[in-house]
Amino acid sequence: MRVELLTVGDELLLGDTINGNAAWLGRRLADHGVEVTRSVVVGDELDVIVAAVTTALERADAVITTGGLGPTYDDLTRDALAAAAGVPLVRDPDLERRLRERVARAGRVLQPMALRMADVPKGARVLANSAGSAPGLRVELPGGAVYALPGVPFEMRTIMDETVLPELARIAGLPAVARRTLRTSRMWESVIATRLAEVEAMDGVKLAYLPDPAEVKIRITVAGPDAAGRLAGVEAHVRTLLGSAVYGAEDESLDRVVHRLLAARGETVAAAESLTGGLIGAELTAMPGSSATFAGGMVTYATEAKQRLLGVPAKLLDEHGAVHPEVAAAMAAGVRGAIGATYGLAVTGVAGPDTQDGRPVGTVYAAVAGPGDSRTVVSPRLPVPGAGPEMRAVIRRMTVVHALELLRRVLMGLDVEGESEEAQADREDLD
Amino acid sequence: MRVELLTVGDELLLGDTINGNAAWLGRRLADHGVEVTRSVVVGDELDVIVAAVTTALERADAVITTGGLGPTYDDLTRDALAAAAGVPLVRDPDLERRLRERVARAGRVLQPMALRMADVPKGARVLANSAGSAPGLRVELPGGAVYALPGVPFEMRTIMDETVLPELARIAGLPAVARRTLRTSRMWESVIATRLAEVEAMDGVKLAYLPDPAEVKIRITVAGPDAAGRLAGVEAHVRTLLGSAVYGAEDESLDRVVHRLLAARGETVAAAESLTGGLIGAELTAMPGSSATFAGGMVTYATEAKQRLLGVPAKLLDEHGAVHPEVAAAMAAGVRGAIGATYGLAVTGVAGPDTQDGRPVGTVYAAVAGPGDSRTVVSPRLPVPGAGPEMRAVIRRMTVVHALELLRRVLMGLDVEGESEEAQADREDLD
Repeated sequence: MRVELLTVGDELLLGDTINGNAAWLGRRLADHGVEVTRSVVVGDELDVIVAAVTTALERADAVITTGGLGPTYDDLTRDALAAAAGVPLVRDPDLERRLRERVARAGRVLQPMALRMADVPKGARVLANSAGSAPGLRVELPGGAVYALPGVPFEMRTIMDETVLPELARIAGLPAVARRTLRTSRMWESVIATRLAEVEAMDGVKLAYLPDPAEVKIRITVAGPDAAGRLAGVEAHVRTLLGSAVYGAEDESLDRVVHRLLAARGETVAAAESLTGGLIGAELTAMPGSSATFAGGMVTYATEAKQRLLGVPAKLLDEHGAVHPEVAAAMAAGVRGAIGATYGLAVTGVAGPDTQDGRPVGTVYAAVAGPGDSRTVVSPRLPVPGAGPEMRAVIRRMTVVHALELLRRVLMGLDVEGESEEAQADREDLD
Repeated sequence: MRVELLTVGDELLLGDTINGNAAWLGRRLADHGVEVTRSVVVGDELDVIVAAVTTALERADAVITTGGLGPTYDDLTRDALAAAAGVPLVRDPDLERRLRERVARAGRVLQPMALRMADVPKGARVLANSAGSAPGLRVELPGGAVYALPGVPFEMRTIMDETVLPELARIAGLPAVARRTLRTSRMWESVIATRLAEVEAMDGVKLAYLPDPAEVKIRITVAGPDAAGRLAGVEAHVRTLLGSAVYGAEDESLDRVVHRLLAARGETVAAAESLTGGLIGAELTAMPGSSATFAGGMVTYATEAKQRLLGVPAKLLDEHGAVHPEVAAAMAAGVRGAIGATYGLAVTGVAGPDTQDGRPVGTVYAAVAGPGDSRTVVSPRLPVPGAGPEMRAVIRRMTVVHALELLRRVLMGLDVEGESEEAQADREDLD
């Protein structure tokens, strides 16, 4: 089954909105074995939408449109589909009733314009929208089916998952495709690809690498008979080849892994942040219920605050500046004591664009203190690239990942590179 | 002049990459008065690319493609353009020499495949790429010109700004269009639109609203003779109609405004964060050099930390729970004292998805303490919507904006809604 996407809206052509809907749909459809062969964006013009839908169905079996289903007069997808089908728009009494109820419940007055959302091309099927007021529509055209979805991402996704995907999967026959995404940290994409060369060579197995700052996600796709069964074997093989670099699967992000490890032991962590300015705390509170394992944080971006709030010795700061492994260690121990957590996690570094205390941009150290008073682990200088002004945000993001990864390794009793010769050499190099 | 965009790459159809290039190009071209009439994404297939380019030129004056210019065999844009023009690919000796030099400088060995990047359709013009190794290409086809740019965003943008945009502007005639973006906070889009109705009605003036959580950007476009001169007048008029809701223009974000106001007075701020977990600190350290005005922060996500680190009275927390205006005020005063800043900025609230201490999701209070010991300003319950699990991130983002806006208003001596009757009623309602 071949599907084309049609996104409708001037705001997309003008670049005011990035086409996240098309990316989400492409991913979702691929996960279900449906191939997206083209994705088109057009503006809010009736004739253009009609022509785009018609042309798309000359190539594909079905078209999914997003946008243009709202109440205002520049929402033209409904009208375009009626025109393409050669039918009038008719008011759906059921939709009208639900719209009126919805508005009444919100204590508002129904704008006459809003009733447009109860109009459907004659003969179209209404796709219920449990997440909002604009329904989806399914219109049968000579070339194939058009599924029209609203542009609001949450509503679009709801209708897609509840109605369209099951229907497409049924029409296309159950897809003999199984997928799994593994998440890795601190291993270069090229190293991963080299290690996985033998997997890539396996029949019916496809690997895709999705790199993020300091992380690489590996999507394994297995096609053919017993895809799900074979996938389990391939996944186990990939995990063996990559070892502890794999920290999770699917939507299990590093912060979730860390929370899970801490919660299982009834332990907590506190964070001391310099260049990240609070991003580690933000990441560790992204998940609901994180107060059970995240005890609190200190943002000591200014050097003076490191001394005052965390008790980093003035002598250390004077001698080495704020960007040094021993400063990271002192920050970690300091925040652990000040907040009273099982572990202290700290980062210090140069996010740029300027060097600091003679250290180049991208010099970053992370440290974990605890669980005992005496144990502190410092990572070596992290593999963070230095570069132009655009890199500041990337360096900060990479530092968050590196810090959480260091904590994960400590919690799991894995090798920490900070204990390696490389780290020692690096430290001697600094002094 | 009408331009179509063609983005090439399987990874876009699969949704592994979001089409940020198309959004950037759309915005950039619109800013120069060039209309993007369609944006198409196709996969890495020779015939499909050839057909897409040819069809696009039946509708538009020029096509800009991105992607498919790299060294690997699935980079097919070069080949497709040669096929569309009916010419062979020829190796450009100048490109080959520069490619060899570049690789030698990096101390690497040239892969034979990389030489593909020195191949150009016969008769094509090479568009220099000062940012990387894949050059752009300009190919003249029967229907119009094709500008082929690499998919790497930084390289694409460089070639676009250095070569393509000036050329398009010259061909199209200097655009008589001037644009300006104003940034507002805490005013609903519908309120703004109502106030600006008279501006929208002016001849040759167009307004676009770009909403973000808790912010609305207003893009003013003036077309016609003396566009730049008229724009200044329109901007002044808009500013008068919206008053203090306008906090900045263009890329002047709220954190930059706050830094500027603090720096001008030699003052500093410290942040105490609950539901935002560090996002306010992260925002206030996003800009280089922010240590001059951002003194530090405390993340007290857990209730106990509010008491321990910030000295929020236990009685207050016992009586009202952690989500209360007086708790916000005590946090602000606490962090101001603990860190030693001119101002303390604090937030407490319920990010969800569950209620907390009987307060519904989206209940958020912000407070500013200082500059004197006695002065504390608390915002009323913020207009943050409560809803499903997807809202947690939005509520946290809105809280950051609301907090920075409260600080801006205090720094500028503007009305703070916390002092209003609404806020008092709200507070009584709580007790």
